[in-house]
Amino acid sequence: MYKFKKISINRHCTEHLYMQLYNSIKDLIINKDIKPHEKLPPIRKLADLLDVNNITVVKAYNLLENNNYVYKKIGSGTFVSDIEDNSYLKGFDGLEGEAYEDIRLMDRGQIEVRENVINFASATPTPHLFPVSDFKEVLNEVLDRDKGLAFGYHDSKGYSPLREYIVKYLEFYKINTSIESIQIISGAQQGIDIISKALLKHGDSVIVECPTYTGAIAAFESRGVKMLKAPITRDGIDLNILEDYIERYNPKLIYTMPNFQNPTGYSYSTNTKKGLLELASKKGLIIIEDDYLNDLNFYTDENITLKSMDKNENVIYIKSFSKIFMPGLRLGFLIVPINLNNEILIAKQTSDISTSSLIQRAFDLYLRKGIWKRHITYMKKIYKERFDTMVQSLENNLPEETTFLKPMGGINFWIGLAPGFSANELYSQSINKDIAFIPGGVFYPGNSESNFFRLSIADVYPDDIKKGIEILSEAIIKYYERSNIRPQRKSSYRPIL
Amino acid sequence: MYKFKKISINRHCTEHLYMQLYNSIKDLIINKDIKPHEKLPPIRKLADLLDVNNITVVKAYNLLENNNYVYKKIGSGTFVSDIEDNSYLKGFDGLEGEAYEDIRLMDRGQIEVRENVINFASATPTPHLFPVSDFKEVLNEVLDRDKGLAFGYHDSKGYSPLREYIVKYLEFYKINTSIESIQIISGAQQGIDIISKALLKHGDSVIVECPTYTGAIAAFESRGVKMLKAPITRDGIDLNILEDYIERYNPKLIYTMPNFQNPTGYSYSTNTKKGLLELASKKGLIIIEDDYLNDLNFYTDENITLKSMDKNENVIYIKSFSKIFMPGLRLGFLIVPINLNNEILIAKQTSDISTSSLIQRAFDLYLRKGIWKRHITYMKKIYKERFDTMVQSLENNLPEETTFLKPMGGINFWIGLAPGFSANELYSQSINKDIAFIPGGVFYPGNSESNFFRLSIADVYPDDIKKGIEILSEAIIKYYERSNIRPQRKSSYRPIL
Repeated sequence: MYKFKKISINRHCTEHLYMQLYNSIKDLIINKDIKPHEKLPPIRKLADLLDVNNITVVKAYNLLENNNYVYKKIGSGTFVSDIEDNSYLKGFDGLEGEAYEDIRLMDRGQIEVRENVINFASATPTPHLFPVSDFKEVLNEVLDRDKGLAFGYHDSKGYSPLREYIVKYLEFYKINTSIESIQIISGAQQGIDIISKALLKHGDSVIVECPTYTGAIAAFESRGVKMLKAPITRDGIDLNILEDYIERYNPKLIYTMPNFQNPTGYSYSTNTKKGLLELASKKGLIIIEDDYLNDLNFYTDENITLKSMDKNENVIYIKSFSKIFMPGLRLGFLIVPINLNNEILIAKQTSDISTSSLIQRAFDLYLRKGIWKRHITYMKKIYKERFDTMVQSLENNLPEETTFLKPMGGINFWIGLAPGFSANELYSQSINKDIAFIPGGVFYPGNSESNFFRLSIADVYPDDIKKGIEILSEAIIKYYERSNIRPQRKSSYRPIL
Repeated sequence: MYKFKKISINRHCTEHLYMQLYNSIKDLIINKDIKPHEKLPPIRKLADLLDVNNITVVKAYNLLENNNYVYKKIGSGTFVSDIEDNSYLKGFDGLEGEAYEDIRLMDRGQIEVRENVINFASATPTPHLFPVSDFKEVLNEVLDRDKGLAFGYHDSKGYSPLREYIVKYLEFYKINTSIESIQIISGAQQGIDIISKALLKHGDSVIVECPTYTGAIAAFESRGVKMLKAPITRDGIDLNILEDYIERYNPKLIYTMPNFQNPTGYSYSTNTKKGLLELASKKGLIIIEDDYLNDLNFYTDENITLKSMDKNENVIYIKSFSKIFMPGLRLGFLIVPINLNNEILIAKQTSDISTSSLIQRAFDLYLRKGIWKRHITYMKKIYKERFDTMVQSLENNLPEETTFLKPMGGINFWIGLAPGFSANELYSQSINKDIAFIPGGVFYPGNSESNFFRLSIADVYPDDIKKGIEILSEAIIKYYERSNIRPQRKSSYRPIL
């Protein structure tokens, strides 16, 4: 019990007593003052010791349990969890397990928020932007042309004419490759998944940017690999940290989004890109480049891909046609270094044999007719308006002490609350005001509490962006005020890091 | 030799002597009375010891070999297999790695054979049988109705109206389930893959039928799990072997195709089905039931699914809409026991987020309009004609010493050459005569040489079936003759095992 004596409860603080107690015990657990599987004091004993109500202890224990810091055994009490135990899909601080699950799903556009909610959480575009009539036209043309063949299997590598056209299409992006290197996939998530399947064994190490895409975390997790976290800064990852990881852990690969990273929106500098390629080549490290939304470069031409600079075949390049522009298609491709071709192909075969023949054939025609390029140009115009509206709204409304770094393109904005404040807590407050976003913790392997959160403009119209950021900024100010910070709305953003 | 002395042969029993001997030695192997890689007695010695004909021993040894209980080394004898060993993508005796790879691909319809080849290898139907104009109609209707929504993400579990209709559709098959249990997948292969991802850890054990579907072998292999081989007989797998495996290895699951199994075409008897369910329920074993082509029941109504008899939620049921009827669609579903729902869902999310929205919506309408049922009825008629032609051709043309068991439905025929002859060798000869089939070795985990091979009628018209079987039978006769066997064409088939 002696460890619990040092818990101090401040009855004059605005924070609920049970939250104070929760945070104190959480700290004891994180600092290993109480060890994994150690028993917590019985409720009444702790209540007596701290002179609080039993209910306060019950609530704190429940919150600890929901956030997996403790577990209960019926009839024997409450015990400390092994928090380093590698387990992804838990809940995280301040949000119940279910709310957490919802947030992860929102990230992938898979949960519909209530109709009146301004949804900065979804990274999936507004459905009415999809080019329905164009796609209908090519579908019909393909069915008339190919008949039954459109429903047959083909080669797991994909429909040859499509792969051939992709090689041509890539010339525009200064990527030289050949049809043998193109592997068709059912969306970027499958790309990550089959690369993991082909190249990783249980117990291997991989390097991930931190924070990073939740779907990548989950795919690596499912393979039982160890994730080494490379913090991302405004210039990309720190190559010294990378080199250190390579020396110490001999990781198989690194998963990166060098342009308009998800969730931060940051891009690697050209120097960092070069340095990463050199290091990879020297050390035999495979780089996965997830080209998330490179086409949405609004204020830079420096969004050059690693693949276009990849002289020594160290990069596996992932491109989704569906992610941003038509997610329900489930279509994308990999550029695979020749020496990895066969492993990747087998992993694709054993995953789903091949990607829908009909969709591949229709998309091939869609590309060849130039409709795809036209569609991207159209989407880029729409997103640029949203992007500019977002930047201006953030600059005008976010209170002091709140930081963001203006990205040069993409759809994501990474906002930092003042240190010590919790994005989860802010989420709980602002969802009640019909504003949704993604608290930053989900983007860290293992989930940590974070003062950062991600705003996405994929599914929000300009007017709602303005309105939403105003409401959100008010909520932040109120949150700060409850802790006796009295910030002003600021008039210009300040870069972080 | 002393272990073999206790073998007792009953000359008054109706069971063939070689079958009695086969079963006795099999028991010695399963009970580890003879250890892996131990040499069996030379044929003549064992014949002398047991006072039987040499041929009896030869036949028993061959049957043991076919079922992977033993392996032969040319010039040095017959040795006990390590039935728990597990090694998939090797290549196998008698065919070079590349030819072997081609054969695996043919199995999945992914290699186009030369135009004039009669293709008994492919299990993918002739493309002109696909209902192109019907599907075109529903596609257009969906695009007009749902517009952009047809290209959005949805719930990883799948499009709700489709899941709802599947529940109704299953009533026809006497399966009672609920919408919560239905998980949409991108084809049966993905089903096997995500179940493995959700439920298996590196080093776990699973039971597979032997021989079995090559895609399942590959999926399990990629998870680093140990495959325990349950030889399949005309009544299904041997429940004693199963129970023994459960006791000794605590396997997580068993992968089965209880009706018209691939590659053998055999079906479990109703008693075996009941026994399997009881055993699974008692021991907490999960059963994967891959309902490969249950709709093609030409001569039986006993093709009842395990799922319809599954009182205690032990069965994960996999059904592909695409496999046989429209493979390029990549669409199917699982029925998942409620307690496994969440793991399976997460595995699906991390694999490809969700199955194509457009395809799900179109197929939903296709089902609701009753076009699917009409299409199956039409396909069943066509396949029945091929099936009957195949049975008759085999009965009329296959030479003596060559065995097959007439299945009650499906598209596959499992043919056994005389013991000691190699299906790989026959393949090398007949492919030069423009006949393709799948040598049996690929269907065994670890690949073994086999005297069995699979003929499929999926992609062959009746006239070509007749012609093909005549040519193939000639090739078999020539192969036998080179080894001084002079068999006659036989006039009726004889069942094996």
